[in-house]
Amino acid sequence: MSKKRYAIGIDFGTESGRAVLVDVSDGRIVATTVHAYANGVIDEVLPGTDIRLEPDWALQDPNDYLEVLKQTVPAILEQGDSAGNAIDPDDVIGVGIDFTACTVLPTKADGTPLCFMPEWREHPHGWIKLWKHHAAQPEANALNEKAREMGLGWLDRYGGKISSEWFFPKVWQVLNEAPEVYDAADRFIEAADWVIWQMTGRETRNNCTAGYKAIWSKRDGFPSREFLKALDPRLENVVDEKMSHDIQFLGERAGGLTATAAGWMGLKEGTAVAVANVDAHVSAPAATVTDPGRMVIIMGTSNCHMVLSEEERIVPGMCGYVEDGIIPGYFGYEAGQSCLGDHFAWFVENGVPADYAQAAADQHISLHELLESKAARQKPGEHGLVALDWWNGNRSVLVDVDLTGLLLGATLATKAEDIYRALIEATAYGTRLIIETFEENGIPVNEIVATGGLPDRNKLLMQIYADVTGREIKIAASAQTSALGSAMFGAVAAGKAEGGYDTIEQASLAMADLRDERYVPIPDQAAVYDKLYAEYVTLHDYFGRGENDVMKRLKQIRAEARQ
Amino acid sequence: MSKKRYAIGIDFGTESGRAVLVDVSDGRIVATTVHAYANGVIDEVLPGTDIRLEPDWALQDPNDYLEVLKQTVPAILEQGDSAGNAIDPDDVIGVGIDFTACTVLPTKADGTPLCFMPEWREHPHGWIKLWKHHAAQPEANALNEKAREMGLGWLDRYGGKISSEWFFPKVWQVLNEAPEVYDAADRFIEAADWVIWQMTGRETRNNCTAGYKAIWSKRDGFPSREFLKALDPRLENVVDEKMSHDIQFLGERAGGLTATAAGWMGLKEGTAVAVANVDAHVSAPAATVTDPGRMVIIMGTSNCHMVLSEEERIVPGMCGYVEDGIIPGYFGYEAGQSCLGDHFAWFVENGVPADYAQAAADQHISLHELLESKAARQKPGEHGLVALDWWNGNRSVLVDVDLTGLLLGATLATKAEDIYRALIEATAYGTRLIIETFEENGIPVNEIVATGGLPDRNKLLMQIYADVTGREIKIAASAQTSALGSAMFGAVAAGKAEGGYDTIEQASLAMADLRDERYVPIPDQAAVYDKLYAEYVTLHDYFGRGENDVMKRLKQIRAEARQ
Repeated sequence: MSKKRYAIGIDFGTESGRAVLVDVSDGRIVATTVHAYANGVIDEVLPGTDIRLEPDWALQDPNDYLEVLKQTVPAILEQGDSAGNAIDPDDVIGVGIDFTACTVLPTKADGTPLCFMPEWREHPHGWIKLWKHHAAQPEANALNEKAREMGLGWLDRYGGKISSEWFFPKVWQVLNEAPEVYDAADRFIEAADWVIWQMTGRETRNNCTAGYKAIWSKRDGFPSREFLKALDPRLENVVDEKMSHDIQFLGERAGGLTATAAGWMGLKEGTAVAVANVDAHVSAPAATVTDPGRMVIIMGTSNCHMVLSEEERIVPGMCGYVEDGIIPGYFGYEAGQSCLGDHFAWFVENGVPADYAQAAADQHISLHELLESKAARQKPGEHGLVALDWWNGNRSVLVDVDLTGLLLGATLATKAEDIYRALIEATAYGTRLIIETFEENGIPVNEIVATGGLPDRNKLLMQIYADVTGREIKIAASAQTSALGSAMFGAVAAGKAEGGYDTIEQASLAMADLRDERYVPIPDQAAVYDKLYAEYVTLHDYFGRGENDVMKRLKQIRAEARQ
Repeated sequence: MSKKRYAIGIDFGTESGRAVLVDVSDGRIVATTVHAYANGVIDEVLPGTDIRLEPDWALQDPNDYLEVLKQTVPAILEQGDSAGNAIDPDDVIGVGIDFTACTVLPTKADGTPLCFMPEWREHPHGWIKLWKHHAAQPEANALNEKAREMGLGWLDRYGGKISSEWFFPKVWQVLNEAPEVYDAADRFIEAADWVIWQMTGRETRNNCTAGYKAIWSKRDGFPSREFLKALDPRLENVVDEKMSHDIQFLGERAGGLTATAAGWMGLKEGTAVAVANVDAHVSAPAATVTDPGRMVIIMGTSNCHMVLSEEERIVPGMCGYVEDGIIPGYFGYEAGQSCLGDHFAWFVENGVPADYAQAAADQHISLHELLESKAARQKPGEHGLVALDWWNGNRSVLVDVDLTGLLLGATLATKAEDIYRALIEATAYGTRLIIETFEENGIPVNEIVATGGLPDRNKLLMQIYADVTGREIKIAASAQTSALGSAMFGAVAAGKAEGGYDTIEQASLAMADLRDERYVPIPDQAAVYDKLYAEYVTLHDYFGRGENDVMKRLKQIRAEARQ
C-alpha cells in the first residue's frame, strides 16, 4: 500500500473558518473542523471600545484569521484518518486557502495590521473592511462616473459598474474619511493575501482577487495613475506605493510555511502553500469544472455563477471576468443574483401564517420543508403567479441595487406555498436570463453543476432550475467545495514530485466528483416554464431597463419619508 | 308630547335579515334584531337532497325571507321603546325593505316559487339564484358579444359590460340548462320584488333593480325583442311573458300589508309598504346624501361608490347608472371595487407570520388591529411599496374580472405591516381613480360620506382615504344605513298625512345624520400620496389597459395547468 498523502484546505468565511484534511489520491475528506471568529462580523461597536460604527459598516479582526490557523489545523491532524490514527505532518504535502472578497486591510510594510497597533486600535478605519462593508457607495459612484467620463474600457469587464464592495472604493473611503490612517498604511492588502503573508513570510497578491475586485488584468495591470489622480490627487500613486506588484497566479506556490506558521499549525516548516483564492472561484474545480461549457452555480444566500471560456467576450451585466481568474488558461466569467436563500428566509420569517408554523411544528419539520412539500404538489403555472427576484436588487444582468421585488397574479385564493414556489421560480428565471446572456455573447452553457447549501436542502428548487433552464443539473459530490478546492490547490502547490499534482485539472480529475443524483428537465414542465419565462423577461425589461423606473422612484420617496 | 310614529326597515343580506324599528321624527333606531337564514347560502348541496351543486353556484331559499318577516318584526315590536314599552302596531306607519341584487327566482303566476312545489323542489334551477351565483358567465359573455355586435347603446350605461351576476344571464342560464324549468316559470322576479308581492299581494318591479340589473331604463324600457331573439329565439318574449311591466319607482308606495302578511309581522293590515330597494342604493339617503356632489362609499368586503347627478353622462367603467335609480329626480351612478375588506382578510389569513399572531393574542387584540397599529406609525411612502388592488379583479373603471393583484417594491426589510398598509393604500388609489373618472366626465365629487363596516373599525384606512383622495370624509351616523334607509322609504310610503314624509329628501333631512368625527386630508401626506398615486396609475394602465396582458395570460396558463 502506497503512503497516504494529504492536503489541507482552509475556507475563511464570513463568520468562521473551516479546515479540511483531504486524501490527495481521491479527494476524500478525512477530517474537518470549524472555528468561529471571536469577533465575528463587527458592525455595531469596535471591540474593546465604546465606539459605535455607522450603518453599512462591517469590519473584521485579523487575529480571528490567525486563530483559525492555530485552532483548526492541529485539530484535524489530531482527528486523524478513518482508523483514528493522528496524521503525521510529514504526510501533509500542501495547504491552500480561500477567502471572502473583497476583504481588505491596511498594514505596515512588515505586514502588521494597523489595528494591532495601539495608536490605531481605536480607529475603525484601522481594521479590516469585510466584503459586505457597504459604506463606500459614494466613492463607488464617483469612481464609476469618472471612469465613464474618461471612457475607460475596463468598465466593460465588470458589467459597466464597480461595486462599492470592491478594493478601490474601500481604500478611497479610508483616504476620504481618515487620511491619517491612509498615510500610516504602507499597504492595503486583501485579507487572503495577508494570511498567505503570515503563513509564508512573503507578501504576494493573487490574480483572482486582484482581477475580480481590484480592476487588475494580466494585459493592462491596475488602473492608470492618470485615472487615480483624476479621482483624487492623493490617490495617484496608491498602486505603486501601497500595493504589492508581485501578482501570483492561481495554481502557483506562494511559498513554504515559515517556522512560526508551521508551529501554529502543527505542520512541517516549508510545507507548500498555494496562492490564495476566492471562496466562490475555488469551488469550480472542486465541482469538477475545469473547462468551458459547464456552469458552476454556488447556491446559498445568493447565487454565484461561474463559467470558463477560451474567448474574451464582453458579456453585459456580469460581475466580471478575469483571464486565469478561475482556472489557468481560461477567461473566468462570474455572474450573480444578489438573493437566493435570502428570498426564502425573508418569506418564511415575514410571510407565512401561524397555522403553517403550527403544522410544521406538529410534523417536526421546518417551515421551509412544509412549504416545499406543499409547493411540490403543484404543476408549473398552477398558482398563477410570476415574481421578479429582486428583493435584494439585481446583480446580473442589470447590475442595479435599486431594483426591488415584485409579485404579480395574486388572488383571494393565493396561498403561502404559491408565493414560495413563485419566488423559487423567479430566481430560476433570473438564472436562465444570465445563461442566455452568456450564450448570446458567445459563451456556451451546456450543463450546470450546482454546489452550496441549497441543492442539498431543496429538491423542488433543483427540479425547477432544470425545467426552467432546460439544462441538466448535476451536484458536486462534496458539500464543502470551497475547502476541498483549496486543498486541491494545496496539492498543486506541492506538485507531482511531492505526491501532489502539476495542474489543477489533474487535481480536479482525481479529487473532485459529482453525485449520482442529477436533475433532468421534464419536457411538459419545461414547456410551461418557457411561457412563464417569457412573461418574466417582459416584466424584467419593463421594470429593469428604464421603461418604468417606479422601483427607483419608490426608493427615493421612501428615503425622503425617512428623513 | 306628540304621539310617536315608527317606521320599520328590513335589510335582506347574504346570510341573514336585519330589521330595525326607527323613530320617524329623528331617525333614532329604537330596536333592532337579526335573523339568520336557516339555509343560508346554498352552494354545496340542495337542501333536503343529495344533489350537489356545480362550482360557482349560489342559491337561496325564499322561505328564509318569509321567516325574517315572521321572526324579526314581532321581535322589535316586543323590544319596544327606550322605556321598555312594547310598540303599538298602530304607531308603525310604514315598512321598507332592501335586498341583495340581482337575486332572482322563478315563480308561478300567483307568486308561488317553483322550489316550493314538489315537482321542482329537487331541481337546482327551481331555486333562487343569489347575487353571487357566478355560473352564468358563458351567457354573460355571449350577451355582451351580441350587444356589441349589434351596437346597442345601453351597453354604455353599464361600463360596456353586463355582469354574469345580473338578470338576463341568470335567466338565460335556466333556459339553456333546464328549459323545462324555464317553461314552468310564469315569472322571473327579483327576490326583493317577490317579498313585496308576499307583503302586499301585488306583483311589482322596482325601478332600481330593473335599472341596475335588468338593463331597463325609464326612456327605453327593457332590451328589445329583436335583441333577445338574436340571443336565443326562445328568449324573444321573455319580457312580455315572464316579467311584470308594472315598474314602480323608489319613494312610491307599493301597497298595503295584506291581512296575512300583517299577521306574520304583528302589524296592522294596510300598513304602507315601500317599493323595494337595493341594499347599497338605499344607504345613500341614510348617509344624508340626496343631492349631487357628495359620494357615498359603502365600505365592506368590497367598495360600492354612489353619486348623483342631474346630468346623464357616459362615465367609462361604471357598474351602471339609472335615472331615478337612487333618489328620484337624479341619475344615480354606481361604481365599485371588487375587493376591500376581502384584501385585508386574505392578507391576515395568508400572509402574517406566527409571531404577529402571538403578539396580537398577548395584547388581546385582533391581528387586524395589531397590523393597523404598526402601520399607523409609518409615514406615507416609508414602506417603499405600491400595490394594485386587484386580488378579486377590477370592477371600476376597468370592468375586468381577469385582472389580479400586484405588489411591487419589496425588499428583505419589508414587514407584514408594510404590505398591509400598501393594500389599504391601493384600494384608496382605486377609489381616487374612480372619483377622477367621474369628475373628468362631468360628475363632480366634492366630499365623501362613508358607511359600511370598515369606517368604524379602521381609522388608519379612513385617514389614508382622505389623504389619497384629497377630500374630506364624513361618516354616516348609523352603522346600519341599509336598514335605516329602508325605514326612511317606509316613512315616505306612508306620507306626511300619516305622520311620515312626502319625499325621501325630507325623510333624509329629519332621520339621517353624520358623526362629528371626520377625516380631513393632511397636506404633507396628501403631497406624498400624489406621487404614489401617479405610480399606481401608470401600473394600472400598463397592466389594465392592454399594454401587458400578463395577468390574463397567467390565468390562462393556470387554467391549463389545472385541467
